[in-house]
Amino acid sequence: MSSAAELTLRALDGVPLVNQGDDLAGIVLTALAASGLTLQAGDVVVLAQKIVSKAEGRLIDLSGITPSDKAIEIAERSDKDPRVVELILSESDEVLRVRPGAVIVAHRLGFVAANAGIDQSNIGNGQEDEQVLLLPIDPDGTCKRIRAELKVRTGIDIAVVIIDSIGRAWRTGTVGTAIGVSGMAGLLDLRTKPDLFGRPLKTSELGLADELASAASLVMGQSSEGRPVVLARGVPYARREGTAHELIRPKEIDLFR
Amino acid sequence: MSSAAELTLRALDGVPLVNQGDDLAGIVLTALAASGLTLQAGDVVVLAQKIVSKAEGRLIDLSGITPSDKAIEIAERSDKDPRVVELILSESDEVLRVRPGAVIVAHRLGFVAANAGIDQSNIGNGQEDEQVLLLPIDPDGTCKRIRAELKVRTGIDIAVVIIDSIGRAWRTGTVGTAIGVSGMAGLLDLRTKPDLFGRPLKTSELGLADELASAASLVMGQSSEGRPVVLARGVPYARREGTAHELIRPKEIDLFR
Repeated sequence: MSSAAELTLRALDGVPLVNQGDDLAGIVLTALAASGLTLQAGDVVVLAQKIVSKAEGRLIDLSGITPSDKAIEIAERSDKDPRVVELILSESDEVLRVRPGAVIVAHRLGFVAANAGIDQSNIGNGQEDEQVLLLPIDPDGTCKRIRAELKVRTGIDIAVVIIDSIGRAWRTGTVGTAIGVSGMAGLLDLRTKPDLFGRPLKTSELGLADELASAASLVMGQSSEGRPVVLARGVPYARREGTAHELIRPKEIDLFR
Repeated sequence: MSSAAELTLRALDGVPLVNQGDDLAGIVLTALAASGLTLQAGDVVVLAQKIVSKAEGRLIDLSGITPSDKAIEIAERSDKDPRVVELILSESDEVLRVRPGAVIVAHRLGFVAANAGIDQSNIGNGQEDEQVLLLPIDPDGTCKRIRAELKVRTGIDIAVVIIDSIGRAWRTGTVGTAIGVSGMAGLLDLRTKPDLFGRPLKTSELGLADELASAASLVMGQSSEGRPVVLARGVPYARREGTAHELIRPKEIDLFR
């Protein structure tokens, strides 16, 4: 049996509540040790968006936000706090749809997401409705930096992926989705590989980092389990630099905006 | 460390080329034995759509298909074989978009997919462009039947999922997506679980079977590896009957059709 045929995803113990300025590479190494694991070449470390955002100080106090007229108008249509809508607009390039409970936007990072991925759960600040968490500033860059730091501290070259739970067109439920990648393909080009019978493949591009994001999301748990770091071992396919940006369909060729 | 925190996906050896009428439950058991594995309660067996379609005799000879005027018109706009377009239309409830290379439809099974999921690769019939493979007739029903057969033969209650590689709005690349489910939630309702701080979760519904489909797709491989059966062990969350149909957003509340 080929070693490429087994994939293991392990949610790590020993991850503390993360605060602004915390060293995420150090937190990963501490959690690995607490879980009795060490990094191996080819591993992928998957981080939940929330701990990256918290480390980057992306927690915003709503009391300091003054909504614009546009935010107030969209808040009425979406049944949302106008100050949260103001933040959604400031994090977005374009509003695609508004419905009660959701303002669906093209995020400044490129992808489409409800409410610009702004989160009010699991923030841990004790002021329930007065603080929200924005997405990380530059998740592809953060992955690259954490990967480099882990390489320096351990000598091992791995990949790093940051994920968020994002909704989809056409389908119910959110799925783990890659918003930052370093050290593996975001989008994998399969067009040069023939099928079993030597024909070119119909399905020519695979959303590789999104598939891994969904796999990792399964073991992170969505609520009180709180396991925001996953070690993935056995992810097949040759490695390259990679970004999550590769997974964004350019607006000009997107038929569903 | 909780046992819920580790998920293993193993692509099985020993799966033969599948033909019409083949016994899929028997093929799963043979492949498990060839891989040195036995079923455990709570396991999930994930099957690629292709082998289910082949077993169901969904291979269609294009020489017997006469395209309608509508199919000919859409074939011109999509640069596709008019006979394939005829089959796409016969498998669909509604055409949503047409572009070169893709006719994006609402499949009769409910989900949105390019070209109604009709496949020309890895069919293995030796007549390259003259046969195509349609999706299974009733994948939720097939999962239920295979699950029941495996329960009879082994005494073990597992879940069964059928997956296909399907494209998305807004994002590049296909991802493994659940088109049939039995024995686990397709869509998982998290609305009653509080977060770490006792607040209701913002992300209230998880596309659980889709996340598992993507995880399994990672180890199946897309081309000459040909490993269409995956054993998933350690999928968290309580089990229930479940369907893939739960993962389809009803047309009436879909903002992106």
